[in-house]
Amino acid sequence: MWGTFILVLFGCGGIAQVSLSKNSPNSPDGFGYGDWQSINWAFGLGLMLGVYVAGDSGAYLNPAVTLTSCMLRKLPWRRLPMYMVAQILGAFIAAGVVYANYINAINAVEGHNVRTVTGPNATAGIFATYPTSDLDGVKASQFFEQFIASAVLNFVIFAMQDDSNKGQFVASGAWFPLGLFFLMFGIGSCFGWQTGFAINLARDFGPRLMSYCVGYGSEVWSAGNYYFWIPMVAPFGGCLFGGALYDLFIYTGESPINQPWFGLGQLINPKKAIQQRLQRQKEEGLV
Amino acid sequence: MWGTFILVLFGCGGIAQVSLSKNSPNSPDGFGYGDWQSINWAFGLGLMLGVYVAGDSGAYLNPAVTLTSCMLRKLPWRRLPMYMVAQILGAFIAAGVVYANYINAINAVEGHNVRTVTGPNATAGIFATYPTSDLDGVKASQFFEQFIASAVLNFVIFAMQDDSNKGQFVASGAWFPLGLFFLMFGIGSCFGWQTGFAINLARDFGPRLMSYCVGYGSEVWSAGNYYFWIPMVAPFGGCLFGGALYDLFIYTGESPINQPWFGLGQLINPKKAIQQRLQRQKEEGLV
Amino acid sequence: MWGTFILVLFGCGGIAQVSLSKNSPNSPDGFGYGDWQSINWAFGLGLMLGVYVAGDSGAYLNPAVTLTSCMLRKLPWRRLPMYMVAQILGAFIAAGVVYANYINAINAVEGHNVRTVTGPNATAGIFATYPTSDLDGVKASQFFEQFIASAVLNFVIFAMQDDSNKGQFVASGAWFPLGLFFLMFGIGSCFGWQTGFAINLARDFGPRLMSYCVGYGSEVWSAGNYYFWIPMVAPFGGCLFGGALYDLFIYTGESPINQPWFGLGQLINPKKAIQQRLQRQKEEGLV
Amino acid sequence: MWGTFILVLFGCGGIAQVSLSKNSPNSPDGFGYGDWQSINWAFGLGLMLGVYVAGDSGAYLNPAVTLTSCMLRKLPWRRLPMYMVAQILGAFIAAGVVYANYINAINAVEGHNVRTVTGPNATAGIFATYPTSDLDGVKASQFFEQFIASAVLNFVIFAMQDDSNKGQFVASGAWFPLGLFFLMFGIGSCFGWQTGFAINLARDFGPRLMSYCVGYGSEVWSAGNYYFWIPMVAPFGGCLFGGALYDLFIYTGESPINQPWFGLGQLINPKKAIQQRLQRQKEEGLV
Repeated sequence: MWGTFILVLFGCGGIAQVSLSKNSPNSPDGFGYGDWQSINWAFGLGLMLGVYVAGDSGAYLNPAVTLTSCMLRKLPWRRLPMYMVAQILGAFIAAGVVYANYINAINAVEGHNVRTVTGPNATAGIFATYPTSDLDGVKASQFFEQFIASAVLNFVIFAMQDDSNKGQFVASGAWFPLGLFFLMFGIGSCFGWQTGFAINLARDFGPRLMSYCVGYGSEVWSAGNYYFWIPMVAPFGGCLFGGALYDLFIYTGESPINQPWFGLGQLINPKKAIQQRLQRQKEEGLV
Repeated sequence: MWGTFILVLFGCGGIAQVSLSKNSPNSPDGFGYGDWQSINWAFGLGLMLGVYVAGDSGAYLNPAVTLTSCMLRKLPWRRLPMYMVAQILGAFIAAGVVYANYINAINAVEGHNVRTVTGPNATAGIFATYPTSDLDGVKASQFFEQFIASAVLNFVIFAMQDDSNKGQFVASGAWFPLGLFFLMFGIGSCFGWQTGFAINLARDFGPRLMSYCVGYGSEVWSAGNYYFWIPMVAPFGGCLFGGALYDLFIYTGESPINQPWFGLGQLINPKKAIQQRLQRQKEEGLV
Repeated sequence: MWGTFILVLFGCGGIAQVSLSKNSPNSPDGFGYGDWQSINWAFGLGLMLGVYVAGDSGAYLNPAVTLTSCMLRKLPWRRLPMYMVAQILGAFIAAGVVYANYINAINAVEGHNVRTVTGPNATAGIFATYPTSDLDGVKASQFFEQFIASAVLNFVIFAMQDDSNKGQFVASGAWFPLGLFFLMFGIGSCFGWQTGFAINLARDFGPRLMSYCVGYGSEVWSAGNYYFWIPMVAPFGGCLFGGALYDLFIYTGESPINQPWFGLGQLINPKKAIQQRLQRQKEEGLV
Repeated sequence: MWGTFILVLFGCGGIAQVSLSKNSPNSPDGFGYGDWQSINWAFGLGLMLGVYVAGDSGAYLNPAVTLTSCMLRKLPWRRLPMYMVAQILGAFIAAGVVYANYINAINAVEGHNVRTVTGPNATAGIFATYPTSDLDGVKASQFFEQFIASAVLNFVIFAMQDDSNKGQFVASGAWFPLGLFFLMFGIGSCFGWQTGFAINLARDFGPRLMSYCVGYGSEVWSAGNYYFWIPMVAPFGGCLFGGALYDLFIYTGESPINQPWFGLGQLINPKKAIQQRLQRQKEEGLV
């Protein structure tokens, strides 16, 4: 819970600072306190520091990565619901803290007791993600971006944690949080424009709920043609897909995916096949 | 002392370069030598390099973190006043060096012998922090931002130093300075706009005193509706709160906070409780 | 293959986000989602994460580096064609994914079924590199930039991997991916403007082929006065040159280049010569 | 030599790209390929990668740091002239490569066979540093900035290399190049505007000579009221001062500076004094 709290605190705090400092009528010099890069920094280091805080529970700040780890990496299933609730709760509270911190600036931009989701002074984007108007009606594209970004996320996380193969550069241990920083920064830089790189049910749903609670109205759900469910569902599919892809083609450890189904496994994961043959030969040699 | 000196030297130097190069009438091409991100970089790496310089005294560049460590981490109390004086002195001298270095540029922007704290050409913000006009009259909000930022600072520092738990990713040892860089950068990116992320009595009071000495007038104290005491007091509260929060919920080492008060400790820090039970069982088994 | 896939996915994705978000008619606020620095970040971390993914095959994401390693570092020659096909294929597929992800935004910028390589709304630069108009007719300069950048790339890679010399700072092991990030970022910052720092046959040819397939027309080949073959050929020459330079002047390990040709080797690589004399003396001493 | 070559190649290449891409008449969209931050990045990572390349000669890319190490760290004096010549030569050649690479773009900005040091289209700043017009006549201030920046440079380098003290965070070993990156970035961010953070005779004199050779005229020497000798002389004083300061106040290893002159040493470097007393007591105890 505290890990997601830190992630969302920095992430949403970063968006708030960048967008509010640009639009505030009291910023006469137009000196923006940050730009899109700051937001990438914020989410990247939010993830990194969140992992430092929550590290010993395996860095599961994302329900979709948790699910994938349950399915492919033998994480006990019973932890999934507990983690999910804690993650959403952490994100919900963090969004509340950000709101409390920036309430004066939000009032200055929007006006007292006015909260809008769309429009020139809308500030709802501080909390939850909304697609660009290019994608307003195109559900498939919205889903696709979230799916791809989540798949990349899980694919690279598995690669960084994969110490089943000696020759590989692994970013486990002390390097893992730094690797996550770069990964998140990259996803924000490359797949973050159109749908806002939520790729995380907890990060998106928790703050969205908070923004609904503090008075942004039902438009938080309906904006972008009822976009809100996309970042809740797509990451699960994407992470599973990315994790399965890695296990299928590269992973040589044990996974339900990369077993030798009638020789098919050998075709697409030659590394694993070679390793198994060596293993067999060694065993026979010992006999 | 030298650690804080380096921190403030880079930090205030960074602000000076960014703000003066923008406003200097001799910069005809409007090519700003840096932006808000540069300031984040400056403070982040100032902290990092300051820790390299002052490392063996435990990286105490911030009186509030020092106080919290005295209360929760058994740092000897007698070091507190000594450290505080050294920290303020270091910051005071560093501000003087920055002023001496940029005096020509300040003259070019403000005019000879003119020093202003508010107004279009004000340069006092190079040295101490002043709140945005959104928050001018709202003491509670000013205090809140400083409080929250300090709490996050101390919370994450404790998490990075916490090696009481094997499974955790810790950023102690060689990784600690780099982790501090990211932490400071994050606070500057996410909670740095409204009140300027002083979160440090020494960093704010030392340079403010210097700017008073070199002739900015009494407005350095009265600006922002006598804002000056906020970054002196709030960080103490915030750091204590953040440190206590970490000890209460996550820390499994020894701390005056996470003792089992009548079973309440078990409720909110289950990790610690489980560990204690295991410990007890082991001891009984040995008997 | 997956390594190059990740490299191009982040790299081209980054360009797409930066250029499309600026030009999209639906971005009313002119808030660019990134700038040239984002593209440097994207390629730098794409390379870094690509190495994590493909690490155990020796980080060969670039056919030219692979060739140089075959010639100077005893990488088996039979791997070269296999790697090259995989690298181009990975880049080709990644470009397809980026295109699919941003197809709506490309339509919004260019218009439906309009794809242009040059002109005000051209988007072909997302996939392959095109020289600036300064260099349009100057083949030699185009070649020179690609050559120099590739030479630097290979020179520094060899330096980072060189553990033949104890006193040296090497970035092999866990530091290698991070070192590559900085190297790529540097090349993009310093030699990336005029010809777009392709320096990689796979990174440039794969996506260019994809952009041809999805309808950008034959101009993808003819633009910049048939520029397309420069980033295919120059990197091979450049990498070989850079690698040979390193071996000639600095490397003390075994390489076909730094043998003592009639005493000439001693002149230009004194370090190696001294080492060899010490070695000889030791052997004679043992006899 | 190669280390300085890499440093200047990236550094000047970075400036060239940023300034030329902004002013080129063929950049219709005003999309600057980088900003001041890119230049910080370029010098920071140029230093880092230069250290990887030249690492085993002790990272001496700067004649002033070399001199200071000769005086305070027992580096053999006979290496100093050799290193200095190599450093200047490396910088000279690197500047030539940058010039050759960007010659078309320089022609486009300045016009064929026109090379200017001052004026709206001047490009001499790519190679050597020139002070801002604020400081044109103020020799003392020019000197002061170079002096301070060099002192900080050497102070922090000594701190990072100081493993005489166990409790300290040291950035020697693998962390040293990364620490240098942050240090250089910081100096560029905080003391880089007014005189261009040369702080290095080789980095400034080598390229300045090259720019004179390729036809920028004698103004490269006379500009800024004969500024050219400042970055040649000031760094020596600054580095010596910074190094001495560190040895005086913090260093506990052996240095000609921190000997106990009649008890004075104890006053200003208590750490060293305490250590010496402990040492004495141990020796007496052994007797």
